[in-house]
Amino acid sequence: MPKEGFVTSITRQSEDFSGWYNDVVLKAQLADYSPVRGCMIIRPYGYAIWESMQGELDRHIKATGHENVYFPLFVPRSLLEKEAEHVEGFNPQVAWVTHAGGKALDEWLAIRPTSEAIIADSVKDWIQSYRDLPLLMNLWNNVVRWEMRTRLFLRTTEFLWQEAHTFHATQEEAAEEVATGLECYRAVSEDWLAIPVIKGRKTDSEKFPGADWTWSIETMMRDRKALQAGTSHMLGQNFARAAGIEFLDRDNVRKNPFGTSWGYTTRMVGATVMVHGDDSGLVLPPNAAPVQVVIVPIFRKDEERAAVAEAIDRFQAALAGTPEGKAVRVKVDWRDESPGFKYNHWELRGVPFRMEVGPRDVAANQAMLVKRVDRSKEAVPLDRLAAELPARLKAYQAELFGRALEFRESNTFHVDTYQQLKDGLDGTGGFFMAPWCGDAKCEKQVNDETGATIRCIPFDSPDEKGKCMVCGRESERRVLFARAY
Amino acid sequence: MPKEGFVTSITRQSEDFSGWYNDVVLKAQLADYSPVRGCMIIRPYGYAIWESMQGELDRHIKATGHENVYFPLFVPRSLLEKEAEHVEGFNPQVAWVTHAGGKALDEWLAIRPTSEAIIADSVKDWIQSYRDLPLLMNLWNNVVRWEMRTRLFLRTTEFLWQEAHTFHATQEEAAEEVATGLECYRAVSEDWLAIPVIKGRKTDSEKFPGADWTWSIETMMRDRKALQAGTSHMLGQNFARAAGIEFLDRDNVRKNPFGTSWGYTTRMVGATVMVHGDDSGLVLPPNAAPVQVVIVPIFRKDEERAAVAEAIDRFQAALAGTPEGKAVRVKVDWRDESPGFKYNHWELRGVPFRMEVGPRDVAANQAMLVKRVDRSKEAVPLDRLAAELPARLKAYQAELFGRALEFRESNTFHVDTYQQLKDGLDGTGGFFMAPWCGDAKCEKQVNDETGATIRCIPFDSPDEKGKCMVCGRESERRVLFARAY
Repeated sequence: MPKEGFVTSITRQSEDFSGWYNDVVLKAQLADYSPVRGCMIIRPYGYAIWESMQGELDRHIKATGHENVYFPLFVPRSLLEKEAEHVEGFNPQVAWVTHAGGKALDEWLAIRPTSEAIIADSVKDWIQSYRDLPLLMNLWNNVVRWEMRTRLFLRTTEFLWQEAHTFHATQEEAAEEVATGLECYRAVSEDWLAIPVIKGRKTDSEKFPGADWTWSIETMMRDRKALQAGTSHMLGQNFARAAGIEFLDRDNVRKNPFGTSWGYTTRMVGATVMVHGDDSGLVLPPNAAPVQVVIVPIFRKDEERAAVAEAIDRFQAALAGTPEGKAVRVKVDWRDESPGFKYNHWELRGVPFRMEVGPRDVAANQAMLVKRVDRSKEAVPLDRLAAELPARLKAYQAELFGRALEFRESNTFHVDTYQQLKDGLDGTGGFFMAPWCGDAKCEKQVNDETGATIRCIPFDSPDEKGKCMVCGRESERRVLFARAY
Repeated sequence: MPKEGFVTSITRQSEDFSGWYNDVVLKAQLADYSPVRGCMIIRPYGYAIWESMQGELDRHIKATGHENVYFPLFVPRSLLEKEAEHVEGFNPQVAWVTHAGGKALDEWLAIRPTSEAIIADSVKDWIQSYRDLPLLMNLWNNVVRWEMRTRLFLRTTEFLWQEAHTFHATQEEAAEEVATGLECYRAVSEDWLAIPVIKGRKTDSEKFPGADWTWSIETMMRDRKALQAGTSHMLGQNFARAAGIEFLDRDNVRKNPFGTSWGYTTRMVGATVMVHGDDSGLVLPPNAAPVQVVIVPIFRKDEERAAVAEAIDRFQAALAGTPEGKAVRVKVDWRDESPGFKYNHWELRGVPFRMEVGPRDVAANQAMLVKRVDRSKEAVPLDRLAAELPARLKAYQAELFGRALEFRESNTFHVDTYQQLKDGLDGTGGFFMAPWCGDAKCEKQVNDETGATIRCIPFDSPDEKGKCMVCGRESERRVLFARAY
């Protein structure tokens, strides 16, 4: 298979979304399978996208007063088992270290599936007084959950993430913190990745094992399925009580602090692929694109090459003349390959703008500018382009967000009966706002029969009395049903 | 114990270096012990120092053409065992996952002690032609080595590090890469952490298991013991051959590529403590200090507080007037504690400059500036201070490096006989440059009898014929002996 065939060789998105996704991830070299079951290798291009969202999220987390820390990879079995719901939820997914240093261990060590248990035990000594609160911590690390069915980025046995863990003197403060975490995730998802989100509360069946309640942001992929993009949990006093954390409050009474935790993972690289991509591969939002503008020089003879190189140099110098221009991530592709090969290469990789600069462009002091998302082509004077590029990237970012939002809105439906939901799911698919009584039995029935779940009870779902579409009992408001990743 | 007692309460460095080190790490809240044997918790202040060196090293690694990637935490046993020396070296230290997802695994999975084995196996498909080389990758991750005796930061069962892995078409190129890695480490150690290094080659007994040769940088702590700060390995074709990596070279012949790997770890946080610290705790180099200048307001009455606050605001505004000034990390400590408490708090934490601003300072439009490293005290007009602070921090950074270099040089001795070495080790301690024949037997004898090892064969050790101090046979040059961490 000739390398030039990459873009035409990927599965069509409309024909087989899943096959398309795998092709894009592998052929754009975001990631690869590894020799370890369910674990992935993140390649440079995929890792650069992760670093970009990681950097942005880290800025939000620090700006809201959290500090980065590190806790051990291992959680002794006895600690994991302290919070009853927690261990029940995670035990089936845990990987256990039983031997080390040439010996069998006295106590098995879990590879952290998440760090609530070890953190609660560790901070006991740090939280003595109300003065030690709030304690606002964040960890960047790897976790392991033994998944049965894995998908590159979306669901892997090991994944990279950020997990925030906080402790507060009052429930009100902790509840505010749950909102702060979710807002960090909205900001990174919407403003950085151009992925519109729906904020809402999870049903009790879907909440985090050991939490009082869980909030999430939900997003729609191009196949109209939902993907949970981030969760923020109110842990109440559950872990603090189990670990025996107590502080002396202002009123001189010893109390258990209230905890929260919230996480955002490498799956968002996969979400970025699935929200913006098309039949030619990735379409990256400029903020997260490792390369924002690729310049492809076109020439045959040596003199042509020199003239083209000189024009590109002048353009880059002009661009670097302003701070915004200097910050633009430009790559000039001088590889010894045909222009067509390079177009395909960068198209597959979703670079927002391609600039073609050939002898005729040099003569006219212009470049041919091609926009990845709609392939529109425009001859633009080089000076003007240098001045306008930062604004054009900003507009491109906004355009992707708008396009994704419109897609989601035009695929979100209000349904009133169970039959409408079933027809919708089996027809176009999408998000379905439907009345539900609040009973886990009705929720489970829908899931068993259709594969759809309640993604969340959206915060902006208005009061609207209705009849539960399953059992006919009273419903307070519509909730969001969808099939999900 | 009153909190004010912190700095006077730490063990004196000169009396018990090891006790002093633990006190500083725990009481300055760099790290804490964890419920998991040999694993540590890195607290915010310690993690911020790690993030600072990590950021600087990442810039060097990227500037030299390497790209960040991620490989799995797990290494299947069969892969770890492919390179014979490698498995022999690491097997005793491996932690094994034997159960996961509720079942016993068919094949045990090692928690990576380092990633050569899994990387060599994974890149097979990526390296087909000389055009795919060099492959220059870097990973930021956690590794586990089951250590018998652990010390916070210096030697922990789990640690954080960076591991670079590269593949090259020729041995010459790979050898250059080994030097590039070592130079990144020199730059971060000397120019960022103000820790002078000695570059050299490890003896065969001390090289990385599976490498052809290993280079290292060696540093001297304040107790005159050595600490290996970073290593860079020429892997030759060993791992490539074991994994079956072959590429088609320009001459149309299939060949195994040459590999290198190099790593730098969280132990360097410990090194920073041990190279610069004193009886009052940490002394941080400004580049790596989370807080470079702490301002302690001094006041009794509310009017005084207002006047002091206003003066501090004006100072901060003036400082922010230049890009260099804006970049200075300043903290104003408004906590409801006594000035003495705050002096101790920040002294223990090694903040380079303390500014005391009280009513009399405000009247004189000045601050009392206290330099952490020598406690010198100086009244400086606030305007001048705002203008001079960036340069003063730079000078402070240079001063720490100079002080550490002078300490190392005045504790490095040329010895010609084994008895001189023994006397020196048991007397002042330090670095000992001594003649050695090159035989591993003599090396082992010294180690067995004195606890000292050959840290490296320094690159700047001149040709100097002599007699091996152990066996009397010919020696080409002096090598560096020391007791080490």
